[in-house]
Amino acid sequence: MITLTTDFGLNDPYTAQMKGVIYTLNPNAKIIDITHGVDKFNIRMGAFMLASAAPYFPAGTIHVAIVDPGVGTKRRAIVIQTQQAFFVGPDNGVLMLAAQQQGIKQVYELTNAKFRLPKVSNTFHGRDIFAPAAAHIDNGISVAEFGSEITHPLTPKFASIQNLNGTITGQILYIDSFGNAITNIPSESIQTQTATVGLSQGLLKLALRETYAQTNPNEAVALVGSHGFLELALNQASFAKKYLVRIGDPVTVTFV
Amino acid sequence: MITLTTDFGLNDPYTAQMKGVIYTLNPNAKIIDITHGVDKFNIRMGAFMLASAAPYFPAGTIHVAIVDPGVGTKRRAIVIQTQQAFFVGPDNGVLMLAAQQQGIKQVYELTNAKFRLPKVSNTFHGRDIFAPAAAHIDNGISVAEFGSEITHPLTPKFASIQNLNGTITGQILYIDSFGNAITNIPSESIQTQTATVGLSQGLLKLALRETYAQTNPNEAVALVGSHGFLELALNQASFAKKYLVRIGDPVTVTFV
Amino acid sequence: MITLTTDFGLNDPYTAQMKGVIYTLNPNAKIIDITHGVDKFNIRMGAFMLASAAPYFPAGTIHVAIVDPGVGTKRRAIVIQTQQAFFVGPDNGVLMLAAQQQGIKQVYELTNAKFRLPKVSNTFHGRDIFAPAAAHIDNGISVAEFGSEITHPLTPKFASIQNLNGTITGQILYIDSFGNAITNIPSESIQTQTATVGLSQGLLKLALRETYAQTNPNEAVALVGSHGFLELALNQASFAKKYLVRIGDPVTVTFV
Repeated sequence: MITLTTDFGLNDPYTAQMKGVIYTLNPNAKIIDITHGVDKFNIRMGAFMLASAAPYFPAGTIHVAIVDPGVGTKRRAIVIQTQQAFFVGPDNGVLMLAAQQQGIKQVYELTNAKFRLPKVSNTFHGRDIFAPAAAHIDNGISVAEFGSEITHPLTPKFASIQNLNGTITGQILYIDSFGNAITNIPSESIQTQTATVGLSQGLLKLALRETYAQTNPNEAVALVGSHGFLELALNQASFAKKYLVRIGDPVTVTFV
Repeated sequence: MITLTTDFGLNDPYTAQMKGVIYTLNPNAKIIDITHGVDKFNIRMGAFMLASAAPYFPAGTIHVAIVDPGVGTKRRAIVIQTQQAFFVGPDNGVLMLAAQQQGIKQVYELTNAKFRLPKVSNTFHGRDIFAPAAAHIDNGISVAEFGSEITHPLTPKFASIQNLNGTITGQILYIDSFGNAITNIPSESIQTQTATVGLSQGLLKLALRETYAQTNPNEAVALVGSHGFLELALNQASFAKKYLVRIGDPVTVTFV
Repeated sequence: MITLTTDFGLNDPYTAQMKGVIYTLNPNAKIIDITHGVDKFNIRMGAFMLASAAPYFPAGTIHVAIVDPGVGTKRRAIVIQTQQAFFVGPDNGVLMLAAQQQGIKQVYELTNAKFRLPKVSNTFHGRDIFAPAAAHIDNGISVAEFGSEITHPLTPKFASIQNLNGTITGQILYIDSFGNAITNIPSESIQTQTATVGLSQGLLKLALRETYAQTNPNEAVALVGSHGFLELALNQASFAKKYLVRIGDPVTVTFV
């Protein structure tokens, strides 16, 4: 099983070209789209999407993720084998959040011309390098056959939280299409059922609930969302729109 | 075969999480997206989408539909077995329009913990309850094993038409991405080849045609659309934009 | 394997209806979406999408493309068999760019009622004629069984380039979701590493590079894109937005 996570959108022919390449090399491939809606060039968002979905896929799944502003430059193309799965994409960090969660076993560079398309463009390695690599892994080719082993894949610093005198400082990891603001504060940090939440726009006193519908429509609520993180939401409306919150914004939380 | 109809959009990882859960439980599953573009929380629109597509799928298909503003509250999770298929989702009416068309045989609540993910979140039953249920049905588990039988699933009142002295009053069921306004007036109600159509914006005298291109570009036309209902359209342009029509608007039709 | 290219978008139930019809006639079908994001009624854009993706699919693939403003009129429904694949859709040119690239062997009209849905609507031949045709071809039905042979399928004039005293005049074929402007000027026309590019908005002097990231962010660059044509781009930003370029705009290029 091969998954795809990209910033290509759904209107261009690029994703279909990748699928055609995979099916040509492996007619029995099963390809699942995670999303093609990553913001253009936003490596962290791609990394978060992949890390959100990958844990739910069967062992042995091959995850391809392409958010690749450096395509055609010297940035490396890599495959990561973890305890549970394979990750294929550029060596710019987009694979690392998901791969580290699963325990990285080995990383190889994708340089073997045998496992690329005969003609490699400078602008679309998704089609010419990453899709063929995924198909060949699906066909049973060992990761060691793709190139040299790599010991230090590029690892971006993902946001971490800080706890100072009971005030936790984190940030908005992601805003979903419902307008829910997912923070990077894990459920273990939650101490009481009421929190003072500090956003750029000011302080909010929020009750911690179990689900959205436990408040009145349009009322703000804090809860542990399905990602396992503290999430800020409105019942049936967009928290992000009402409070003008954006990905990357700092958040402070004090439990009272 | 399992279909998915949701209001999740295509940019979030939620749909992919559901697919991963299904493939983990049933690696041979075949999953088809009906749409993830239902307006957020719009149960009637979800019901209409599902009812439009379900009749075209093979016998035995398992349809999962999730438009679920009440997730995590006491609203029930259900599976409906009809003469032709299975429907899995929240007991809020989203399944009923499609299920009733096919003849409901039995309805069961989804309470058996054996057929849920080990940890059920309060905010995403699509992943934790409905996706596993669909996979288990696909694996041959009988609907009676999921929980207690239910005799009165929640049945929303969908719009019905009225005929008073030859004037039919109905409403706009759906506006598609071409801007065609699909009413709930069935083809059997059509009497002549010219109709006076009353919208909030005034009266239109429309000829009934067989297809869009039988008028001049940008000219309004009434016809029986592919849904089998009276449809208001422009040739190669958006009727809904030109006449400011919205879903739920009342429509009167007098045949002249 | 069956691919779909349409202007239906992803929010309507139309694509799902087509898939349901195909799976009902051929439960083992494998359906891949090329795109449903063709601009409504834009036959040339649909033709370009299909021609961009089709070469990457395995031999024997059945490509269905539906951009069909003339649905229900006398425009013919056709199947084209090429050296490599099958193309199914309206006889309005949407299939021809891709089919001609592969070498057309024969073209047949789709008139045999045996291979349509029992009831054919006037407004949705995708579901009622084209989807069943694709499923039947996938089941092994020969193209000659669908109707009479056609010798002159409608062939739109796609833009060609002109070379006058070293100045090449072409046009913008496509603008992708990154804002890259793909011209119809093939890589063989490129003579030197610097070009003066004329757009409606004025003249630009551009260096020819191998990839986007070989300029500074937000700086304009010309390159041979993954389509094999001269492409105008910004590094990590939208060329089309900055220079107000649109599909169909004329472009002149002089190599200096």
